[in-house]
Amino acid sequence: MAISARRSPRPARAGNFDKSFDIVIAGGGGVGLATACFSAWLGNKVLLLEKAPELGGTTIKAAFWYWVPNNEPMKAMGLVDKKEDCLRYLARISRPEVYNPKHPRFGMSEWEYDACVAIYDNASKATELLNAKGALEYRHCPGVPDYWAELPEDKAPVGRVLVTKQARDSMSDGGVHAIRTLAGAARKAGVDIQTSHRVQRTIVDEDGRVVGVEADNGQGKALRFGARKAVVFATGGFTHDPELRQHHLSAPVKGGCAAVTNEGDFVHIGAAMGAHLRNMNYAWMCPVVFEKVVNKDPGLIGTFSPSGDSMIYVDRNGRRVTNEKLAYNESAQAFFKWDPAKSEYPNLVLVAVWDQRSQDHSASDEYGRFIVPKGADAKHVIKGKTLEELAANVRKRLKRYAAETGNLALSADFEKNLKATIKRFNGFARAGKDADFQRGERPVELLFNGPTAPKTGKNPTMYPISSSGPFYAALMTGGNLDTKGGPATNVDGQVLDALGRPIPGLYGVGNCVASASARSYWAGGATLGPFMAFAYLAANAADKEPGSAKARRREAVDA
Amino acid sequence: MAISARRSPRPARAGNFDKSFDIVIAGGGGVGLATACFSAWLGNKVLLLEKAPELGGTTIKAAFWYWVPNNEPMKAMGLVDKKEDCLRYLARISRPEVYNPKHPRFGMSEWEYDACVAIYDNASKATELLNAKGALEYRHCPGVPDYWAELPEDKAPVGRVLVTKQARDSMSDGGVHAIRTLAGAARKAGVDIQTSHRVQRTIVDEDGRVVGVEADNGQGKALRFGARKAVVFATGGFTHDPELRQHHLSAPVKGGCAAVTNEGDFVHIGAAMGAHLRNMNYAWMCPVVFEKVVNKDPGLIGTFSPSGDSMIYVDRNGRRVTNEKLAYNESAQAFFKWDPAKSEYPNLVLVAVWDQRSQDHSASDEYGRFIVPKGADAKHVIKGKTLEELAANVRKRLKRYAAETGNLALSADFEKNLKATIKRFNGFARAGKDADFQRGERPVELLFNGPTAPKTGKNPTMYPISSSGPFYAALMTGGNLDTKGGPATNVDGQVLDALGRPIPGLYGVGNCVASASARSYWAGGATLGPFMAFAYLAANAADKEPGSAKARRREAVDA
Repeated sequence: MAISARRSPRPARAGNFDKSFDIVIAGGGGVGLATACFSAWLGNKVLLLEKAPELGGTTIKAAFWYWVPNNEPMKAMGLVDKKEDCLRYLARISRPEVYNPKHPRFGMSEWEYDACVAIYDNASKATELLNAKGALEYRHCPGVPDYWAELPEDKAPVGRVLVTKQARDSMSDGGVHAIRTLAGAARKAGVDIQTSHRVQRTIVDEDGRVVGVEADNGQGKALRFGARKAVVFATGGFTHDPELRQHHLSAPVKGGCAAVTNEGDFVHIGAAMGAHLRNMNYAWMCPVVFEKVVNKDPGLIGTFSPSGDSMIYVDRNGRRVTNEKLAYNESAQAFFKWDPAKSEYPNLVLVAVWDQRSQDHSASDEYGRFIVPKGADAKHVIKGKTLEELAANVRKRLKRYAAETGNLALSADFEKNLKATIKRFNGFARAGKDADFQRGERPVELLFNGPTAPKTGKNPTMYPISSSGPFYAALMTGGNLDTKGGPATNVDGQVLDALGRPIPGLYGVGNCVASASARSYWAGGATLGPFMAFAYLAANAADKEPGSAKARRREAVDA
Repeated sequence: MAISARRSPRPARAGNFDKSFDIVIAGGGGVGLATACFSAWLGNKVLLLEKAPELGGTTIKAAFWYWVPNNEPMKAMGLVDKKEDCLRYLARISRPEVYNPKHPRFGMSEWEYDACVAIYDNASKATELLNAKGALEYRHCPGVPDYWAELPEDKAPVGRVLVTKQARDSMSDGGVHAIRTLAGAARKAGVDIQTSHRVQRTIVDEDGRVVGVEADNGQGKALRFGARKAVVFATGGFTHDPELRQHHLSAPVKGGCAAVTNEGDFVHIGAAMGAHLRNMNYAWMCPVVFEKVVNKDPGLIGTFSPSGDSMIYVDRNGRRVTNEKLAYNESAQAFFKWDPAKSEYPNLVLVAVWDQRSQDHSASDEYGRFIVPKGADAKHVIKGKTLEELAANVRKRLKRYAAETGNLALSADFEKNLKATIKRFNGFARAGKDADFQRGERPVELLFNGPTAPKTGKNPTMYPISSSGPFYAALMTGGNLDTKGGPATNVDGQVLDALGRPIPGLYGVGNCVASASARSYWAGGATLGPFMAFAYLAANAADKEPGSAKARRREAVDA
């Protein structure tokens, strides 16, 4: 069944419904399913509508680490994670430009601060409940550091990360298990789950309250579903809407690894309801294999782990321009450097180069690594027996994509510079110290270093690149996991209008609504951990909704 | 009279009006006034509402250069400015990341391309009409280059800029004259002009057509003004709405030199009508004096011309990090460099440093220069008899603003590095060649070099900084002229919804609607020249509007 096209997001008037529920949830990724579980466990009749033919959203592609401050296993281990310390850390990295340790909110806005407090207070409650109910069982990752673990403001640098219990040892496949168990728990709790249903707009009553949604059923039929208490959107970000990307994001990304159905539906549907948009400029970012993103490969996974010790990124001039092992959200920034004297993005594509050692020992099909093992899709890998042959082949490959890069091409002295770059890098590798970009000096860089040869260098992220071929290359660019802007909500998930007032009956959770993290990525699982808190809060708030005027009047008559 | 606070932007229902017109225009800057003139000349009864107690908006602070491709004086001079060449130039600098010389639209989207075509086709028509009517008389600036004049894609690198005829020789005060003559022409044509009237929301009829606005009259009374044909917004950008800045712009700017009334009114009012937002991530940018912007100085002018040859910008470590003479839109980028390994904006404030030579010869109160003459407001100037004393005073000044900078402070080795930086710069100045940042090598840098001593160096933008004091400094940051995002319009100024359909009766022009220039600043006057084209097109389209259903019915009965 094809997914139907976007129609007008303007709200429809209330009238007859095809079917009515207490809570209607749009979006069947991890966040929508968790919200469905919480809602159903509170005794509500719940409908969950998913646009794609299958459940899972972006979550099913994710490792499903979840960042839960002051979680129970931490406490059991004796790790201390005080609220004030945690909030200070979040302020320091989310709003460094106004961070103020003496300010009561550490420089954050009230909205941001309240959201961070809500995460601290509720993420553990939410995940404990999901765990106890068997909907999402976890195991603790006591050794996983926050992404800014080295900052003095991080007083609990390890211990906040959980992962789906059933995930493999490398923790890369948590999403598959999480979706399976969450969907199972939702069904067991009586949630009506309908896939291939695209929500097109809200339905509002005479008071302007959201009382349902109109959705296409996959055969092109528009169905009207009533929601006595609330409609909760969990439809993901706008990674796959080129128009929204181009006109909102702070960097010219080409796409990313979000579910291909993440087309900003709630930006449009929410805005048509008068929702106020926040954090539209930022995304959860990661390097991505350029050819996969421009060719819209639905299996694309962000390069969370750029494996390979004898591996470097070079620019079109054959020079290193960044620390290749930076945490993914930050590594992605290197591609968007702006040259203010030439009006161009000189690093929009960087070339990852590696040798046979890294090919032999760092190949993997996990965490979006671009050095892939035999049998994996390797169309993005460019080869050469010598550096000259490699460069010639990179030149050819880049030419094919000229229209996607503003004609980015290797410079005439690429080969010469590349050799000098390798020589310099090899010196750093032998010394164990990268004097140019400090590769491998931060905990997060070791976390994502990926597999290496048994014998590593002094600094396990660096090893001299061989003087003889074969050599390998891949074109890399910056991309999104997913975007992190959308309608603003309060901590209960109620969508806010331009004056900060909740729009009655309308809720949002996950990447379809605005994140309080600004441009920052706090730690592994800083998406899903907080989302579980907000799913929990939204379900609890929606449960207490008085319902629509008509429903209230009916109740009065019934009583 | 105080300006009333923002109220709900949700549209009001039609009903009785206090007064009715053919066209109602919100915003009395240069663009609103031009639209009023064009509308009145077409025979319409026009009302113009301005939020501030005075007309002028941002325009009155502007030099009022206006960029008009293929203008009449160019043609008279024999300068050739072919349409295809002009469009290619605009694509190259507006969308460098997808620029494609072989593509029929050179890589631009249809919306962007159509807007550029409309500018090329109409800016000259519009400005000729304004000139002929005496509403805005021009003189040609045949020597003023485009900001990217050196690019091979710019086939008409000089000649596209006009300036208000009455402007002084230095062309810095065109805005004052333009507002005077435009307002005079509008009044003469019968436009009803009301200042201290804040438009709060639109009024819509039963068909969803905009048929008027509700505005506060300055005494807190809400008045309802009918618009038989159309409402045109020209209310400026969102430079002075901290919330919109923070959640939309691609850089953490603190404000800028737009009129202080530019608070994003039309983002909210338009969004509440279902308008689709575009280009929300970008602004017309410029360096600004940090203390003026954080203290919200209403007289702030962007530093369009960073005068001084014996003047450099240094970072907190005492090192140069940018070409100080880059055109303002690009120079502003240096302040927003992100350090992905430290989670901070290390250059959020840079320190401009100069000596007595530049103080004596480059002081000026025009174009937002920070080296100011005796008698001018010099609170932002920090002094020191020696570099050590200067650094000590900069340290003190920075401390005062710690909460506004994320605790930015000079490093312990600032003085040592500053001396080395000056030594290196002085070598470049003597050689006439800046090996680090190529200062003074592009035409636009000479255009904005500002006044210098009679005897300049080989490169007039550089002269060795004196080895003896006194020395001077100013804290600089990046800011906005104004933002360039908002509701999308078609070339006729009709505001578009999420599906690209015009919202009946609703128009927008100027910085309150989305610009097709993305992050780019094409040339001096690339704001006002195109705006005159769109004011002309919007007035002509609005003139042909059939009017509201009720008005149509009334006409039918009258006939």
